[in-house]
Amino acid sequence: MTEPLPSSPADPAAPVEHQRAHFPEGMALDCGAWVAPLDVAYRTYGTLNAARSNAVLVCHALTGDQYLAERHPVTGRPGWWEAIVGPGKPIDTSRFFVICANVLGGCMGSTGPRAPMTDSDGHTRPWGTDFPNITIRDMVRAQEKLVRHLGIDRLLAVVGGSMGGMQALEWAATFPRMVHACAPIATAAHHSAQNIAFHEVGRAAIHSDPDWRGGRYWAEEGLVPAKGLSVARMVAHITYLSEEALARKFGRRLRGASALTFLEDVFEVESYLRHQGSTFVRRFDANSYLTITRAMDYFDLAAEHGGELAAAFRGTATRFFVASFSSDWLFPTSESRALVRALNAAAASVSFVEIKSDKGHDAFLLDEPEFHAALGGFLRGAAERLGV
Amino acid sequence: MTEPLPSSPADPAAPVEHQRAHFPEGMALDCGAWVAPLDVAYRTYGTLNAARSNAVLVCHALTGDQYLAERHPVTGRPGWWEAIVGPGKPIDTSRFFVICANVLGGCMGSTGPRAPMTDSDGHTRPWGTDFPNITIRDMVRAQEKLVRHLGIDRLLAVVGGSMGGMQALEWAATFPRMVHACAPIATAAHHSAQNIAFHEVGRAAIHSDPDWRGGRYWAEEGLVPAKGLSVARMVAHITYLSEEALARKFGRRLRGASALTFLEDVFEVESYLRHQGSTFVRRFDANSYLTITRAMDYFDLAAEHGGELAAAFRGTATRFFVASFSSDWLFPTSESRALVRALNAAAASVSFVEIKSDKGHDAFLLDEPEFHAALGGFLRGAAERLGV
Repeated sequence: MTEPLPSSPADPAAPVEHQRAHFPEGMALDCGAWVAPLDVAYRTYGTLNAARSNAVLVCHALTGDQYLAERHPVTGRPGWWEAIVGPGKPIDTSRFFVICANVLGGCMGSTGPRAPMTDSDGHTRPWGTDFPNITIRDMVRAQEKLVRHLGIDRLLAVVGGSMGGMQALEWAATFPRMVHACAPIATAAHHSAQNIAFHEVGRAAIHSDPDWRGGRYWAEEGLVPAKGLSVARMVAHITYLSEEALARKFGRRLRGASALTFLEDVFEVESYLRHQGSTFVRRFDANSYLTITRAMDYFDLAAEHGGELAAAFRGTATRFFVASFSSDWLFPTSESRALVRALNAAAASVSFVEIKSDKGHDAFLLDEPEFHAALGGFLRGAAERLGV
Repeated sequence: MTEPLPSSPADPAAPVEHQRAHFPEGMALDCGAWVAPLDVAYRTYGTLNAARSNAVLVCHALTGDQYLAERHPVTGRPGWWEAIVGPGKPIDTSRFFVICANVLGGCMGSTGPRAPMTDSDGHTRPWGTDFPNITIRDMVRAQEKLVRHLGIDRLLAVVGGSMGGMQALEWAATFPRMVHACAPIATAAHHSAQNIAFHEVGRAAIHSDPDWRGGRYWAEEGLVPAKGLSVARMVAHITYLSEEALARKFGRRLRGASALTFLEDVFEVESYLRHQGSTFVRRFDANSYLTITRAMDYFDLAAEHGGELAAAFRGTATRFFVASFSSDWLFPTSESRALVRALNAAAASVSFVEIKSDKGHDAFLLDEPEFHAALGGFLRGAAERLGV
């Protein structure tokens, strides 16, 4: 199951070995293409019980990956959801078997633009921009194959924030009998025009970087469109933070210098690259960024169900927990309320909480005790109903 | 006064002649540098009365210029404030003598990065990135020289939206006896951390464009950092619109195509360049964009007055009209309210209106009858008090 990832031009360090499920037959995509073989890289935490009834699937966000509760193999940083996932934490790994898969289209071991493919002339090279257009539903179908592969017929819960929340919703809509409980957090049932536009700016910045080379940067050893990807990350970064959080994050430098120099290097691309230790452009593939942001932008659950969001959930037995954060302007509370209205219209069981926070969209990743208590309570309740 | 602008590498068309005031002695800047000579390009509309008491100065926004009420000499489009300025309009050119100057640091004839300077070795070349750091107060000081040069001791009103509103506020604070009435619109007394961050993204995009050449793109005929400047304009464009306005503007294209292809070319840089007819990168200089956005980011009127915004207006006899737009998230109503509180604390005469609009920040440029009626009424009242 575990095999070495080919040395990546974006990662000058030794190749990272990712735990993977391999499906030689591949899978069909919404766009009509067939991708084969299919690899799904994943991590698990905790132990699957004998009844195979305690599995919680966590879906990651745009630039996340499967390393949610352990040291990241490229950056060396803690897992991105260690605040939430671990023994005694809201997603309690002493009680639940937690699964997290790198999304289809990602760049941490799952099949995506950085993965190798065999060209018509028999040469092996990365998919690059030849990787087909994918959807959130394609990501979910790849995860379903992994879940079946792990011998699990029904998930106790599917949980995710931001793009992870889109996947959680898609799971409940596409595989309703496999999802006992669903927690879409800081998300929406479709991507807004403003969010699409911000993504378009990021993609334009990547396309404008001459090192992108029309998507074929991998053809030259060590070349990545670092500046374009950094600009994309910068603009996204702003949307993840509230005004208060942004002022707090960069406030120290604003206060420390004179009125006429305080801006120098606050957010300038070179200093931003230094500030991020270049880890983002090292760990993340630009073509994956293009592919995954497009998948988010395509996402429109109502459109997949005849234009009516409630139709996506009609007759569902899944229990839902919807959470938003008051200062999140990327996925504002109004989007969660629209989702809750549709779930109510579908006669679904749903609880909703808006968490007061000044941390913006990123709040779902951070220390928010009220959110942690609410999510933990929801999962305990779901587990008790199943006798887990 | 009128002299040809040197052929600009950003403008492949015939050189545009701008009406200009020339000040050989130049002026001192807040940063300590001295810029000489100083040219201030401007346009006037209407007739100065014998008492020289009917002059209204309009200050333009970041990418605006002095062509506010006539066909633009580069783009051929109508003036940017023809909805507001003209005979019988809120700023009534049959009653008022309207002045609009290209800001210091601009690229439409006033001294700025595109203007010629003589190097230490005697060569003449554009200022480029050697142009000093300027402030909103420097822009206002250059305008004050123009106003004096036109034989005007006191302005009936200073009016401006967005960065133009910053200038209007700076006029009232720096030259209080020259300003009878002041209308800062869709603006703030300081630039927020979020707004600074969006500007930083734009600057990073320009810096990342290899055609920027460290700011020396002018050294090669016809070369401009078009892609970087376009990405900067794209991200700014999003901040100028509300979610509703963005969906409306790009909604037609979103609706017209299939779910899997609707994103093609919505906002992608090449299509954006086509969509804008490349006029922005032709008419606007990238180094000016860097210079002016920095001036906006430095702006903090309270900091110029010991940290207390009210101190900027203490003892003022100027009458203020503050207007904001409900869906403007770049300069939200809360910023205008903070300004009004400071003006009240300074015992200034101030009226405030929040206009209900779904057009976002751009509303101040568009057809907003309630706003037009309120601004027109304020100016008529100010004129009547002066017997104009």
